[in-house]
Amino acid sequence: MIRRIGQNTLGFEETPAIAGYASVAGKLESQGPLGNDFDKIIYDSYNGLQSFEQAESRLQTEAVAQAIKKSGVSAEEIDFIFAGDLLNQCIGSSYGLIDFNISYLGQYGACSTMAQGLIMASVFVESGAAKNAACVTSSHFCSAERQYRFPLEYGSVRTPTAQWTVTGAGSCILNNSKKGPCVTRATVGKIVDLGIKDANNMGAAMAPAAALTLKNYFTDTATSPRDYDLILTGDLGEVGSKSLYDLLLIDDIDIRNRHNDCGLMIFNRQKQDVHAGGSGCGCAASVLCSKILKDMESGIYNNILFMATGALMSPTACAQGSSIPSVAHLVNIKSR
Amino acid sequence: MIRRIGQNTLGFEETPAIAGYASVAGKLESQGPLGNDFDKIIYDSYNGLQSFEQAESRLQTEAVAQAIKKSGVSAEEIDFIFAGDLLNQCIGSSYGLIDFNISYLGQYGACSTMAQGLIMASVFVESGAAKNAACVTSSHFCSAERQYRFPLEYGSVRTPTAQWTVTGAGSCILNNSKKGPCVTRATVGKIVDLGIKDANNMGAAMAPAAALTLKNYFTDTATSPRDYDLILTGDLGEVGSKSLYDLLLIDDIDIRNRHNDCGLMIFNRQKQDVHAGGSGCGCAASVLCSKILKDMESGIYNNILFMATGALMSPTACAQGSSIPSVAHLVNIKSR
Repeated sequence: MIRRIGQNTLGFEETPAIAGYASVAGKLESQGPLGNDFDKIIYDSYNGLQSFEQAESRLQTEAVAQAIKKSGVSAEEIDFIFAGDLLNQCIGSSYGLIDFNISYLGQYGACSTMAQGLIMASVFVESGAAKNAACVTSSHFCSAERQYRFPLEYGSVRTPTAQWTVTGAGSCILNNSKKGPCVTRATVGKIVDLGIKDANNMGAAMAPAAALTLKNYFTDTATSPRDYDLILTGDLGEVGSKSLYDLLLIDDIDIRNRHNDCGLMIFNRQKQDVHAGGSGCGCAASVLCSKILKDMESGIYNNILFMATGALMSPTACAQGSSIPSVAHLVNIKSR
Repeated sequence: MIRRIGQNTLGFEETPAIAGYASVAGKLESQGPLGNDFDKIIYDSYNGLQSFEQAESRLQTEAVAQAIKKSGVSAEEIDFIFAGDLLNQCIGSSYGLIDFNISYLGQYGACSTMAQGLIMASVFVESGAAKNAACVTSSHFCSAERQYRFPLEYGSVRTPTAQWTVTGAGSCILNNSKKGPCVTRATVGKIVDLGIKDANNMGAAMAPAAALTLKNYFTDTATSPRDYDLILTGDLGEVGSKSLYDLLLIDDIDIRNRHNDCGLMIFNRQKQDVHAGGSGCGCAASVLCSKILKDMESGIYNNILFMATGALMSPTACAQGSSIPSVAHLVNIKSR
């Protein structure tokens, strides 16, 4: 039974279980602090294929295959897969998932897609629409760079506020098995646009959406940051994380001693030249589906908020002078 | 309560109601057979704005505003909106819906988005996750043409199998009000790719997905074409519709005297130069949310299958020589 909590939050009484999860990451990511936590490392940017886009599709294939294997259910038993990515027309998902032959519902939440997919899978499992549901998302530095910014061959200089698109993917399999970490509550975000127009400063554009979703969640559930072991944002990076602190402190909400950000965790910013941190759908997905869920299984964390943020602009909209609308979706995950 | 029917179909016991619906269409569409059925006509390709993309966003704004008005609920009472379009990063939705301040879940199903949105809204309403849920999608000839094909200024010649992207949008508001046509069953499609590589023949690429979803639905529900007043496909056009007949006849399923296609209905192909028919997310959406739902309210149809099909490729994937994967989602809609 799905319960509405306050204005914006859903409560899952049956607490859909994350029965399996897996992550795949690239070479640079493997050299970062989480290098030993990923299920698979791709050392070749082409992933053995003909193009960066095909390589990204294969990341999703591999993440889903690993998650299915670890979940103990078979692909035939999975009723729906919720998937999306940053590539135009979400081709990372459509080409990457075809061989699984699972009913497909494409999602677009930009870098918030992992949280959105978890929410969708939870709603479908909790409501009885699915026995098993999967979600997956990915990003790839090379495919994102040439689609959103410049051809890699230009070797263009990046601004200090820019983030580095993670090459990686993460996938979860949800069901009612009562094993593994579980999804207990979720808040779906609203579109927020405070007028940021700098496409090299996504953290600043996305922080207001994160602040709104988090405030709505705390209000709806009558909880506060101290009730959680970890408040994990998707990929606000250094600039966006500080913006989020500032925005929340206006309302006397202080998350600083509970907060971490997937974009800050995945790279060693002192040694790796990634500027303000990691980004991309695959950032939040690969961090959640590696270290974070492992730490929940081993008891390091028992009750976390996972909130992935997405910037909903396009290069066309930016070229036309539009500002950057954003959204943030939040999932409360607990250990059993 | 959502019931699983067979392998691939969902049954909605509470039968979520389409409490409000509305359509917006362009000038060429207003000159077609359904010209008098749309709620609003946009005679200016720019819709009074600065770009075709902004014009498309406004189509979604207007369709949702009209649907809300006709539903009798207020925007504040709508818990979720499911939306997507064909533009890169779905900017038709993100920019078009920001002012409604409704929790936003972006969908990507290409031209199948209207059916996908109806399924999502139905699952959320039926499960109690939403009291009221909205869905919307759009397309715009000018924004699609320059993104997917050529700049309009080229005046490029089109192949006979090509379809004309509809300028239009459609939106539905679903709830448990028990008024208006209702969603009773749904089948989510699987990704199908039979190797078609001609991006100017989307009908042929999408027909296999439509055939698979329809066969799965008939098997799951133990029904046949004669049980329905109308089997309405999204935008297979002339080529795709014939392909669908051929594919289904292999399994002795004959839908010919029950079938119509939104892409064939929206234009007068004898008088309007649209080649194989209409296409685009806005085609199925604007036809469903005008003539079809009106005809259900007036008793002309009582039990229909609405199946929208989507081609899941991108221009990048086509340029790399990939074939075109497709998906088709089906919704069974009944009168009260």
